[in-house]
Amino acid sequence: MKLSIEDLANFARGAAFLGTGGGGDPYIGRMLSASAIQEFGMPELIEPDELDDEATVFTIAMLGAPTVLSEKGASGEDVDLAIEKMEKHLGKKADALIPIEVGGVNSMLPIMAAARRNLPLVNADGMGRAFPEIQMVTFNVYGVPCTPATVTDEHLNSLIIETGSAKRAEDLVRVSSIEMGCSVIMSSYTMTGKQVKDYAVHGTLTMALEIGRAIEKGRKEGEPVEALASYLRTTPYYNQCKVIFDGKITDLRREIKNGFTMGYCLLTALDGSDRTLEVTFQNEFLIAKEDGVVRAIVPDLVCMVDRETAEPIPVDSLKYGQRIKVLGVSAAPIMRSEKSLAVFGPQAFGLDETFTPIENL
Amino acid sequence: MKLSIEDLANFARGAAFLGTGGGGDPYIGRMLSASAIQEFGMPELIEPDELDDEATVFTIAMLGAPTVLSEKGASGEDVDLAIEKMEKHLGKKADALIPIEVGGVNSMLPIMAAARRNLPLVNADGMGRAFPEIQMVTFNVYGVPCTPATVTDEHLNSLIIETGSAKRAEDLVRVSSIEMGCSVIMSSYTMTGKQVKDYAVHGTLTMALEIGRAIEKGRKEGEPVEALASYLRTTPYYNQCKVIFDGKITDLRREIKNGFTMGYCLLTALDGSDRTLEVTFQNEFLIAKEDGVVRAIVPDLVCMVDRETAEPIPVDSLKYGQRIKVLGVSAAPIMRSEKSLAVFGPQAFGLDETFTPIENL
Repeated sequence: MKLSIEDLANFARGAAFLGTGGGGDPYIGRMLSASAIQEFGMPELIEPDELDDEATVFTIAMLGAPTVLSEKGASGEDVDLAIEKMEKHLGKKADALIPIEVGGVNSMLPIMAAARRNLPLVNADGMGRAFPEIQMVTFNVYGVPCTPATVTDEHLNSLIIETGSAKRAEDLVRVSSIEMGCSVIMSSYTMTGKQVKDYAVHGTLTMALEIGRAIEKGRKEGEPVEALASYLRTTPYYNQCKVIFDGKITDLRREIKNGFTMGYCLLTALDGSDRTLEVTFQNEFLIAKEDGVVRAIVPDLVCMVDRETAEPIPVDSLKYGQRIKVLGVSAAPIMRSEKSLAVFGPQAFGLDETFTPIENL
Repeated sequence: MKLSIEDLANFARGAAFLGTGGGGDPYIGRMLSASAIQEFGMPELIEPDELDDEATVFTIAMLGAPTVLSEKGASGEDVDLAIEKMEKHLGKKADALIPIEVGGVNSMLPIMAAARRNLPLVNADGMGRAFPEIQMVTFNVYGVPCTPATVTDEHLNSLIIETGSAKRAEDLVRVSSIEMGCSVIMSSYTMTGKQVKDYAVHGTLTMALEIGRAIEKGRKEGEPVEALASYLRTTPYYNQCKVIFDGKITDLRREIKNGFTMGYCLLTALDGSDRTLEVTFQNEFLIAKEDGVVRAIVPDLVCMVDRETAEPIPVDSLKYGQRIKVLGVSAAPIMRSEKSLAVFGPQAFGLDETFTPIENL
């Protein structure tokens, strides 16, 4: 199938929702993809099952501090270079591209890349949400090597990284990305069509689009958050979904630390009670606790949307006094396995709480 | 020619002298090369003129904080990997290796590498001394690209770096080396035989050996510092040489900062006067000032030796109360050109003083 250029706004909005506060600013993401599409045409979106088992699939992503990423953008030449360096290093061409995560930028940048390279984009990704570190992806959980990884910047400096583990790659890419100005383009987790079929979270790009459409439709009908939740309940992964809080931000602490946006925000209920919800984040929202009781926890999705428009709110846009509905949403089953929880469960973020599925909370 | 294994101690000692306090611990350097030579045999030492103009020559070096470097050493596999990654990336084999600098480790590690790879080692280097940063080398001054550079660690993680400038490469290698445990193996400045002939500082390895021999001979005859100075006066570069101070360390400040060993030491004269000499260092000794007056300044060599044995003293081994003779020694003419001073003259180290050759001080 092909997206149309009119779909981009809804696609970016839905991707930002699944990005759970991270994954980049959807406006920037939309601008990046729109300009590439105008120049190179809309790339084809293919299902994992359409890939040959032996096909070569590259991921492509932007990595860094979201604030800087919004300012620097990507020229396109940096995206080309990351892919070209990988092709030369491996001695083979990419047959398709796949996003590593779903998010406002990291779903859109692959569209830009696919358009520029005239490659199909796979309707899937490595988590069905966004995560802050590059080892936090099903591809790593199920044994796809993270490296070789190529990293490029806007000056067309480049790195090719080969490590024994995805965590080592994360550490090296992180310090390099800081030195390269806090925002870089990365290609990693080169895999086969068979691996995409087995380990990717399928269908997430079209689900992002449908989420955006549901919000748009809901706005016309006057109940955007309800429309969003109703659509989620029809999906294969996100069907366990609750509006866990309706409040306004009464405290907010946010800082750039070790290349991440870290902190928490406190919401106070709008129903006149003195209930509060504390949401902690590392680029993405990680855990929501109401008066000390867990309401939603990673890898399930904690999402914040404007209570009137259902517009997803990135961590960077949180403001004191904002009125917000918080949703807890089930992650894809492949993301909740024991192996997955060892890589991106609560303990991977230093949380003391154990994972409990949203449907049991 | 071939070095003999008996030459290693004198070679390492002379290299440590030319390392002006940096370039690594000669004991570690000797151990690294000795074990490789026992296993693989002594590599051939060739003169730059013996290279074909079209030959492919790789540099090989250890980079990081000297303290860590002494503890970690190099397994040999990391050295092989840096060279193999470069060969694969360029699609051609190395015909010879060349040290990037002269120093206790960085002259010896190339012997280890040449032995392991069964390659000749060129009797030359990129400065005829040691310097803390990778852009500070004649190869860079005269237009040899620093990158592609390969970087490896003891876990066989690897990087291939390509940047627009040697300074960018330095910045990226530095942060990566810190993340990789403060000590890495690097190959960079791949060049042709013609470039080695034109831009390297020739003959420095055999000069290092002769310096070590002069010290050994001087010890037997009772005047090692004099014997050292006498030999230096016969060399093509180091012939302007003065013993600028005879004193003991009465103050010492040394810290690890940004991956370097930074600081200064103060010597007080042993002749009963109250004269003092302050020597500032960044891995290497940079400037010696007697009561505020410059006595020797980079890129000329500031060298500290034990006043009785003429043993070169690395920055890491400086101790309060040590009795030391300080020598100022002329750098090779290619190191003193205007273009060279722009890259590693006093201003490159944040010093206010301008370069004045030792013979004019």
